Amino acid sequence: MTNSAPIDLRSDTVTRPDDRMRAAMAAAEVGDDVLDRDPTMRALEERVADLLGTASALWVPSGTMGNLIALMLHLQRGDRFLAPHGAHVLNHELGSAAWLAGGMPDPLDWDAGPGRPTAEAVRAQARITTAYDALHTTLLCLENTHNGAGGAIVPPHEHAQLAAAAKELGLKVHLDGARLWNASAALGVPPKALTVGVDSVQVCLSKGLGAPVGSVLAGEAEFITAGRRVRKMLGGGVRQGGVVAAAGLAALDRIDSLGEDHDNARLLADGLAERGWQVATPQTNMLLAAVPDVQLTLQRLTSVGVLAVPMSGQVRFVLHRDVSEADVEEALRRIGQAGI
Amino acid sequence: MTNSAPIDLRSDTVTRPDDRMRAAMAAAEVGDDVLDRDPTMRALEERVADLLGTASALWVPSGTMGNLIALMLHLQRGDRFLAPHGAHVLNHELGSAAWLAGGMPDPLDWDAGPGRPTAEAVRAQARITTAYDALHTTLLCLENTHNGAGGAIVPPHEHAQLAAAAKELGLKVHLDGARLWNASAALGVPPKALTVGVDSVQVCLSKGLGAPVGSVLAGEAEFITAGRRVRKMLGGGVRQGGVVAAAGLAALDRIDSLGEDHDNARLLADGLAERGWQVATPQTNMLLAAVPDVQLTLQRLTSVGVLAVPMSGQVRFVLHRDVSEADVEEALRRIGQAGI
Amino acid sequence: MTNSAPIDLRSDTVTRPDDRMRAAMAAAEVGDDVLDRDPTMRALEERVADLLGTASALWVPSGTMGNLIALMLHLQRGDRFLAPHGAHVLNHELGSAAWLAGGMPDPLDWDAGPGRPTAEAVRAQARITTAYDALHTTLLCLENTHNGAGGAIVPPHEHAQLAAAAKELGLKVHLDGARLWNASAALGVPPKALTVGVDSVQVCLSKGLGAPVGSVLAGEAEFITAGRRVRKMLGGGVRQGGVVAAAGLAALDRIDSLGEDHDNARLLADGLAERGWQVATPQTNMLLAAVPDVQLTLQRLTSVGVLAVPMSGQVRFVLHRDVSEADVEEALRRIGQAGI
Amino acid sequence: MTNSAPIDLRSDTVTRPDDRMRAAMAAAEVGDDVLDRDPTMRALEERVADLLGTASALWVPSGTMGNLIALMLHLQRGDRFLAPHGAHVLNHELGSAAWLAGGMPDPLDWDAGPGRPTAEAVRAQARITTAYDALHTTLLCLENTHNGAGGAIVPPHEHAQLAAAAKELGLKVHLDGARLWNASAALGVPPKALTVGVDSVQVCLSKGLGAPVGSVLAGEAEFITAGRRVRKMLGGGVRQGGVVAAAGLAALDRIDSLGEDHDNARLLADGLAERGWQVATPQTNMLLAAVPDVQLTLQRLTSVGVLAVPMSGQVRFVLHRDVSEADVEEALRRIGQAGI
Repeated sequence: MTNSAPIDLRSDTVTRPDDRMRAAMAAAEVGDDVLDRDPTMRALEERVADLLGTASALWVPSGTMGNLIALMLHLQRGDRFLAPHGAHVLNHELGSAAWLAGGMPDPLDWDAGPGRPTAEAVRAQARITTAYDALHTTLLCLENTHNGAGGAIVPPHEHAQLAAAAKELGLKVHLDGARLWNASAALGVPPKALTVGVDSVQVCLSKGLGAPVGSVLAGEAEFITAGRRVRKMLGGGVRQGGVVAAAGLAALDRIDSLGEDHDNARLLADGLAERGWQVATPQTNMLLAAVPDVQLTLQRLTSVGVLAVPMSGQVRFVLHRDVSEADVEEALRRIGQAGI
Repeated sequence: MTNSAPIDLRSDTVTRPDDRMRAAMAAAEVGDDVLDRDPTMRALEERVADLLGTASALWVPSGTMGNLIALMLHLQRGDRFLAPHGAHVLNHELGSAAWLAGGMPDPLDWDAGPGRPTAEAVRAQARITTAYDALHTTLLCLENTHNGAGGAIVPPHEHAQLAAAAKELGLKVHLDGARLWNASAALGVPPKALTVGVDSVQVCLSKGLGAPVGSVLAGEAEFITAGRRVRKMLGGGVRQGGVVAAAGLAALDRIDSLGEDHDNARLLADGLAERGWQVATPQTNMLLAAVPDVQLTLQRLTSVGVLAVPMSGQVRFVLHRDVSEADVEEALRRIGQAGI
Repeated sequence: MTNSAPIDLRSDTVTRPDDRMRAAMAAAEVGDDVLDRDPTMRALEERVADLLGTASALWVPSGTMGNLIALMLHLQRGDRFLAPHGAHVLNHELGSAAWLAGGMPDPLDWDAGPGRPTAEAVRAQARITTAYDALHTTLLCLENTHNGAGGAIVPPHEHAQLAAAAKELGLKVHLDGARLWNASAALGVPPKALTVGVDSVQVCLSKGLGAPVGSVLAGEAEFITAGRRVRKMLGGGVRQGGVVAAAGLAALDRIDSLGEDHDNARLLADGLAERGWQVATPQTNMLLAAVPDVQLTLQRLTSVGVLAVPMSGQVRFVLHRDVSEADVEEALRRIGQAGI
Repeated sequence: MTNSAPIDLRSDTVTRPDDRMRAAMAAAEVGDDVLDRDPTMRALEERVADLLGTASALWVPSGTMGNLIALMLHLQRGDRFLAPHGAHVLNHELGSAAWLAGGMPDPLDWDAGPGRPTAEAVRAQARITTAYDALHTTLLCLENTHNGAGGAIVPPHEHAQLAAAAKELGLKVHLDGARLWNASAALGVPPKALTVGVDSVQVCLSKGLGAPVGSVLAGEAEFITAGRRVRKMLGGGVRQGGVVAAAGLAALDRIDSLGEDHDNARLLADGLAERGWQVATPQTNMLLAAVPDVQLTLQRLTSVGVLAVPMSGQVRFVLHRDVSEADVEEALRRIGQAGI
């Protein structure tokens, strides 16, 4: 990145496949995943299942579809589901959890910290009943890290308490783990330590990991078999998907290096704080900054070549593999020079 | 009602048609409402439209279907709608607003008082955007009186502010007026003073009015024409419905006498307060009482022939046309005698 | 009916409740069918279940809703269902069998006669497969009498063969018996002789029987329990429905007299045939007449006070309780006089 | 392919990306297609729009999703759509055209030849009505080549007549052109000669063209804008999709060479006919062979290394880029040697 090029901190979804992924795509062994199963796709699915501690897994074109398939299988018409306020399934998937999966959402407050509901709230809001004319709460949908809360982590013991409360109440648990890898890297625990007690989990291969196209939905074998059918219904089944699966496999090799993005996030946060910005300490690869006028600040940032987005009434910066420590320093230099 | 019979304060849905309604049913002129329109049905629809200040109206078998038709017409997949926390469309219609009408709900807090969101909250939560990949907020769904808030009234000026905020933002407004007649009677204003700025409103003929079977959905002529089609889809179209419409017409003659139920609610509230119960002053025909152990209190009440139900963690009593002032006094006597 | 009044042969849906039904409505014992069950509703449901030979039954506002609830319970997304070409669920319910119940329809030809598919066709078209990416055929939907085929009867042995073929293939069977009473009366067999092997059946109380508002869905107890929940979802649950149930009970007393409508249908068919019309012998209360120009014929009929409707490219006449033998003779006289 | 390897004639979906496509994938310029549009994706969409003569186009993960998005935009609840008997949208997409797009299908017979309905049938079956309680026919869905009819072509003049009939009736036209390239190559006309009068068309980049993952939906600009939103809803939006778009662009260079697959199909058909098989002359890259026992024949073929599938009660062979003329000769040799 040259000094004059914009530094893109809008999202980790801008990451691009690296040479190793591209080479893997060019060399990938492929097959017809409908007729015979694609061998590289299958290898990817097995590796992710192993990482997440589930019996089985299924490639899907996007995290949105992965969440949707899970919710379509867990929910039916007349069901209520609980999810943390601001969850991706509530705010960023065009409501398909409601109109397509059939569930009536009931948001949970962040009583335990940003993005973190409590097991007590789950117990209080489930309102379990067998009344024929009442909604039946059947699902708890978690998100780790929680995007709308600035990449906040739900720590393993809190996750386990939430999942346990759900089980007591007879609820299924789905985990939207689009950025679970970040939580894993930041905590220094294996991903499967964060999936305890879940019935399904979705993880992205793009975002921080940098693979193009694709997420993986994981769960019990029977669940995944049913999920293949729903994926076909939605038009998410592909033929020689091994080409993208190969990039996904390569991307999984760099989970540990996500820590660099977290370091860079802290570097940026510290730099901004030094300049008087009001910034919470980042837990993973994002930071939210409270500013008096979000649109004005974003415009000024853009004018000096630092790209960010508005989020929850603040300015959000996201660090990722295509932004180096030097880029962060350059971004701080530009911000400082412009007196932002 | 003899001294020994139970006094049923569970809901105003237990009301029974009186002799005048029964006579009207027996004498009703009827027709095939699909082929020619039923004349009595048509008379009912015109009378309700006139009362509510709308161009047109449509009979429906239930308030649930009236709300559902309105939401199916106002919402489409990818839309978000706002409704007060605890609204009937959120909690008591099995989620059809979501899975069938296609909307993702976003509950509004009661910042202005029980059951009453503020226009500011509507502005803040609408998050208007034209982004192709974001939910589009398109509807504000109000409820007056608000059942989950113990029959609380949204006063005309607050209603008007809410509707005005919706219009500024380009949102449609639907009013769930299942008990709008109670608000009208309690405030001493005509029903149409409470429908200012709405695109649709649903009112019940059963509940306080006491007619068996039926509600009415009202709005613009084109809206109602579209609603007839949706009613047919859902199986809510009937043939010689004039028999029930006749009872509805008779029931509308007694809107003003709903004030007696409100008087009785206050009588009961005062009596309970004298006995040390913690009761908010009722605004219409319901009261919520905070007790240490809801289930225990309900059992004790039942054992002395006073029927109530749990609601929002409290004991709810509902007054209605089949409970007289003498019944309330008898209920208080039984409660007193049993030391509850 | 005076000589000058129009004779309405458009449909048996124009029938009006008689004095006995009106008296029953005026006197009906009622209750809150959600909280306690309405006693008259319950009596109606038990009587219909008994007539149809099922364990349980559920009142619904319309035949369309009865069919819809059955299909919503029998079908899920990814299922195919078979139904005779021209069936009511295919052509006259706005497609809710597809978009709401989730089934992909596959019409069966009338290989055994008007409105009558064969068991062989069921076997051939079911295309049973467990392939994860294929539609799964799970339901056979029958209709007796078949409206689109001019009130044609499926005789008991053919019905039994169709149901048996379905069972062999693992399909559920739903019977749209909106006019099952007519088939029963015409064949001189009890209704339950025509429900052999079905999982659910819907019958109408309006149409030939003349009750206002209402149909009944019958089946196993567990099915009906689930159906109550779906009815609530669709807004078909009502409170003091005993008033209409009472009319339904009275209407059931006259099943046997439906034979008069069949006699009148034959009388009309014979009269028309004598005048050179091309008319198939009616099996129940309808007849279809092939004419060179349907719209012209309907206009001419209307001009002399004989009302009919177009159907399947022919003119359809429907006989019913509000048309007497004398009315038929008068209709023939008018048609003769006008030289139609 | 060595002599001993199986010759895979099951489907053209088994084709694999060639070296040129793999190289293109490795070198593809990519971007975040949600935030900025991916440049290679955009180039692919523009090229396909140009080939098909439409204003705009949209990449989708599969043909199933392309058809689904089109139907979701063209249809709403209460609509009927017409499609040739055996169409992919009727039989091979798990019914989503019905339960998700909301349409009630009405199959058209093949009166003009295999896979080819007539404009007369469209006129007769549309049954246009404005009745509020009737299905409204709003869409004609065509398929060229027709897979279930063995790759049969709808010639340009018949297509134009069908589209014209639809327009007269006020119907939209969607063309499932998963194998439109084959029709184009076989007829020697440009693809846009086969899209006259359509409102939308879907084409596959996999199948005969051999690209991995992906189809394209094309139509007017406003339609495609709406389609992007629906694609997001279904989870079909991807980030750095340029990698697969690059393969798609490379695949489009070989449309003309599809003629080789057609030559090979005729070669195989002739060889089988010489051996006494009952085979219709193939129009494109498929052939259907009528045999006494389909399962037995498929087993015998498999045992000598010739793979095929059952279809419409026959044995289907599909020729494609990964099967050479020599492979066809080898397949015939194996069949001959085994006396099949």
